[in-house]
Amino acid sequence: MSKKLTKRSEDYSKWYNELVVKADLAENSGVRGCMVIKPYGYAIWENMQAELDRMFKETGHENAYFPLFVPKSLFEAEEKNAEGFAKECAIVTHYRLKNDPDKEGKLMVDPEAKLEEELIVRPTSEAIIWNTYKNWIQSYRDLPIMINQWANVVRWEMRTRLFLRTAEFLWQEGHTAHATEREAIEEAEQMMHVYAEFAENFMAVPVVKGLKTESERFAGAVETYCIEALMQDGKALQAGTSHFLGQNFAKAFDVKYANKEGKQDYVWATSWGVSTRLMGALIMTHSDDNGLVLPPRLAPIQVVIVPIYKGDEQLDAISERVKPLIKELRAKGISVKFDNRDTHKPGWKFNEYELKGVPVRLAIGKRDMENNTFEVARRDTLEKEIVPADEVVDKIAALLEDIQENIYNNALNYRKEHITKVDTFEDFKEVLEVKGGFVLAHWDGTPETEDKIKELTKATIRCVPLDSQEEAGTCVFSGKPSNRRVLFAKAY
Amino acid sequence: MSKKLTKRSEDYSKWYNELVVKADLAENSGVRGCMVIKPYGYAIWENMQAELDRMFKETGHENAYFPLFVPKSLFEAEEKNAEGFAKECAIVTHYRLKNDPDKEGKLMVDPEAKLEEELIVRPTSEAIIWNTYKNWIQSYRDLPIMINQWANVVRWEMRTRLFLRTAEFLWQEGHTAHATEREAIEEAEQMMHVYAEFAENFMAVPVVKGLKTESERFAGAVETYCIEALMQDGKALQAGTSHFLGQNFAKAFDVKYANKEGKQDYVWATSWGVSTRLMGALIMTHSDDNGLVLPPRLAPIQVVIVPIYKGDEQLDAISERVKPLIKELRAKGISVKFDNRDTHKPGWKFNEYELKGVPVRLAIGKRDMENNTFEVARRDTLEKEIVPADEVVDKIAALLEDIQENIYNNALNYRKEHITKVDTFEDFKEVLEVKGGFVLAHWDGTPETEDKIKELTKATIRCVPLDSQEEAGTCVFSGKPSNRRVLFAKAY
Repeated sequence: MSKKLTKRSEDYSKWYNELVVKADLAENSGVRGCMVIKPYGYAIWENMQAELDRMFKETGHENAYFPLFVPKSLFEAEEKNAEGFAKECAIVTHYRLKNDPDKEGKLMVDPEAKLEEELIVRPTSEAIIWNTYKNWIQSYRDLPIMINQWANVVRWEMRTRLFLRTAEFLWQEGHTAHATEREAIEEAEQMMHVYAEFAENFMAVPVVKGLKTESERFAGAVETYCIEALMQDGKALQAGTSHFLGQNFAKAFDVKYANKEGKQDYVWATSWGVSTRLMGALIMTHSDDNGLVLPPRLAPIQVVIVPIYKGDEQLDAISERVKPLIKELRAKGISVKFDNRDTHKPGWKFNEYELKGVPVRLAIGKRDMENNTFEVARRDTLEKEIVPADEVVDKIAALLEDIQENIYNNALNYRKEHITKVDTFEDFKEVLEVKGGFVLAHWDGTPETEDKIKELTKATIRCVPLDSQEEAGTCVFSGKPSNRRVLFAKAY
Repeated sequence: MSKKLTKRSEDYSKWYNELVVKADLAENSGVRGCMVIKPYGYAIWENMQAELDRMFKETGHENAYFPLFVPKSLFEAEEKNAEGFAKECAIVTHYRLKNDPDKEGKLMVDPEAKLEEELIVRPTSEAIIWNTYKNWIQSYRDLPIMINQWANVVRWEMRTRLFLRTAEFLWQEGHTAHATEREAIEEAEQMMHVYAEFAENFMAVPVVKGLKTESERFAGAVETYCIEALMQDGKALQAGTSHFLGQNFAKAFDVKYANKEGKQDYVWATSWGVSTRLMGALIMTHSDDNGLVLPPRLAPIQVVIVPIYKGDEQLDAISERVKPLIKELRAKGISVKFDNRDTHKPGWKFNEYELKGVPVRLAIGKRDMENNTFEVARRDTLEKEIVPADEVVDKIAALLEDIQENIYNNALNYRKEHITKVDTFEDFKEVLEVKGGFVLAHWDGTPETEDKIKELTKATIRCVPLDSQEEAGTCVFSGKPSNRRVLFAKAY
C-alpha cells in the first residue's frame, strides 16, 4: 500500500479516510458500520482515557459498569419523557443458534429461543442507569451519586465514517444524581469545563463552550452544554456534551428522595459524554498532507530514534551510544522508540513516523557518531537541526512543550480567522460558501428560522457561546429582533 | 438492610451472594443474567486491570478494539473447526424500533428493519479477530502480532451468579499470531505464568498451573493451559486460561504468511483470557463471616481513618492531627480515606469497613488525642493495638505488606491441607464428600472414565498439573494403567 496521501486541498474527506487507515489508527471491519481500532489508534485513545479518567476522579466521580442491554420496556418509560429519541438500535430477539448447521453448513437461529421481551443494545444508558438509581436513592444521605462508565454503545447509523460516525463506538458516560437543581446545573457546567480543559490542554484543540438550542438539545435534557471545535476544512465538530436533565429522568423512572425535613422530592440529574469521535477531532485539527500531527501529551511514541548504518558493527556502536539517552528520556517520563529493524530502510522509517505523527524524530548516522551529535526533527514544522549529544535531552524536553503549544496556537489562529460576524443573509451564505468556519449572526430564537437556515445553507446553530455578549440586532434571516449572536456552522 | 451476613458454615453460597451485595460490589440488574458492577466493586476490578495491563505490556502486547458483533457467517467458518462451540448467544436480528409506540404505549420492533444476516453479540472474539488478521498478515515481517482487548462479552447462561457466571461479563482476551509453533507454545505458556504471578502476588490467591484434558479444553484449542484456585468451601475455580490454538483458526480463516524463503504457511495462534470471574475468586478465597478481606495490593481503600468525637470542635482538632498523616501516607502511594461523615456513628463505620474489607483501620478519639496515639486495627486477623503517632506510618506500611503475605499464606495452607492423594474410588468419593478440595488420583487417560467419574461424583479433572511427576499407578476408577496423577475437584 502506498504511504502517499491525497492532498487536503484536493479532497479533504478522502485525505481523512486515507490517513486513518494508513497511519494504522483504525479500519472498517467485516461488520457493517463497526470499526477495528488498531493498536496505534487505540494507544492514543488509551492516553485520552487516562487523562479524562484522572480528571473525572479529581472532580469526585467513581467508575462503575451497567448492562449492555436495555429491555424494551425501559425504553418505553423513557419514551414518554423524550419523544425524539432515536429508534435506530441493534435489537436482540433470540438467544440461541440451532445446535447443528444445516446441509449447506449454515447455522440457523433457533426459533424456539425467542426472548419474551426484546433487548436493545444500549445507544446510551440513561434508562438502565436510572432504573438502577431508583433502588439506590432513598434519602438525601444517598446523594449526590457521581458515576462514570467507560463503555461501548451502538447506534444504527446508515452512513458511517471511521471515528466520526460508527455504529459501535467507545465512550464514557457520566450519570449523576443530586438533591438540588443548583447542584445539578453546577455539575453539568463543571463537566463542560473539564471537557474544554482536556480538549485544549491535551488535544491542543481550541473549543467554544456554549449552550445548545432547543432543537439541537439531547432528548430529555433541559439544557445541553457543549464544546465545539473547528476542523481545517471549515466544518465544526461537536467534541463533547454535558446535559442538565432537570427532573425528567427522575420522573420517568420515579426516583424520589427524602430531604433533611423528610419531604419527598424528585432527584435532579445530569449526564455527559465524550467518545472515540474525539479521535476524529484530533486528526482533523492538526494533521497535514504528510500525515498525522499528534500533540506530545497524547502521542503514544513521543520520540523515535532512527539509526542510519551499514552492517551490524555500526548498528552496535549506535545502539551503545543511544542506550543511555533512551534511559534518561524514559526517566523523565518521555516515551521513546528505538527503531533498529533491519527490514526497513531509514528513508522508509522517516516517512512512516511522519505519517504516524511522532512529535520528535532523532536520526544518528556515521557523521553524528564522529561529531557526537544527533539530527533532531520536529513533526509539526518539519524543521531539522544538528544538536550536540549532551544537549539533546533538554532539547527534546523543550521541543515537546513547544510542539504542544505551537499546534494549539496554529489551531487557535485558524479558528480566529474563521469566526466571521455577518449581518445579512447574503453575507451569511457567502461566508459559509467561500470561507467556511463559524459564523456569528443574530437569530430570532425560533426553531422555524433555525430549520429554514439549515435547509437553505446546511448550517446549524452549533451553540450559543457562553461568552457571548448582549447586543441588539435583527435576525439574519427573518429580520426579527434578536439580543444575542449565536454560532452557526456546517458540522460533522 | 442489615449488614449482618449469613455464616459461611451455615450456607456458603448464601454467604457469598449476600456479601457481594452488602459490600457494594455488584447487584443483579433488571436485565436477566446481567449484573451492575457498583463503584466499590469496579474500583477493585480497575486495580486488577491496571496490574494485568502493565504485565501484558511488559511482555510485549498492545491493546486494540474489535467489533462487538460477529456476523453469523463468521461463526460458520469457525464452526467447521470447533464443533463444540456454545450456541447460547444473544442474537441481533433487527435494527430499528417503530417510530411511535402503539395505543398501549408499547414500542414495537419494526419488522421491515430485519437484518439480512444476523449478528451474534461476541461470546469471544476469535472469529472476528482472525477474520481481521487475515488482512494484516502477508509475510513473516508482519509477525508476531501480540494484541490484547479489554471488552464485554455475552454468553446466554441459564443459571447465573454475580461475578461467577453472568450473561454479560467483562474480560480481557489476548489473541496472538506467530510464525512458528514453538513461539506460539511459548506465548501460551508465558501468559499462564503471567496469570499465575498476578493471582499469587496481587490477589494473594495460590494457584495450580496445569493443562486441561481434551474434554475440558477450549473448542478449537490444541492445548489449554490454566490456573486453578481453591475456594474456602473446597470447590475449585478456574481463574484463567491460555490456549495454544495450533493452526486451527489460521486454517478456518485462511491466514497464511510467506516465510523468509518465500514459502507459504499457516500462522500459529494463541488466545488467553481472565474475566470479572476473578472477583469471585478474590472474594471466596479470603473473606470471612464479618465480610470481605481484600489484599492490600488491590484494595481501593488501603487505610480508613475513623474519628471518634463529640461536636465540631473535637472533630476539627482530630482533622488537624490527621491531615499531615494523610499527606504522608499518600506520598508513599498508600490510599487513605478519612471518614468524617456526621451522618453515621463510629460503630456503624467500623462494621462498614470491616464488611468492605479495608485492610487497615485507624481510629482516633479523645484519649488518643491526649496520648498522641492511634488505634490501629488489621482486617485479616481483627487484631488491634495502640500505636504512637510518630510510628504509625511505618506501622501501616509494614502492616500492608504483612496482611498481603498473611492472607496468601492462609490460602496456601488451606490448599495444602486440601490436596489429597487417593488410590481407591472409595477414598476418592469419601474425600470429595467429607473434606472437599483437590484430589490427586490416577486416571486412565480416556474421556469415558472422566465422564463417568463426573457423573458419579460431580468432580472434573481441573488439570494435569505442570509440576506433576511421572509415577506408575492404576486408574482410580477403571483400574487401567496410568503414569501420572491428575487433579480432580468439584468446581465453580
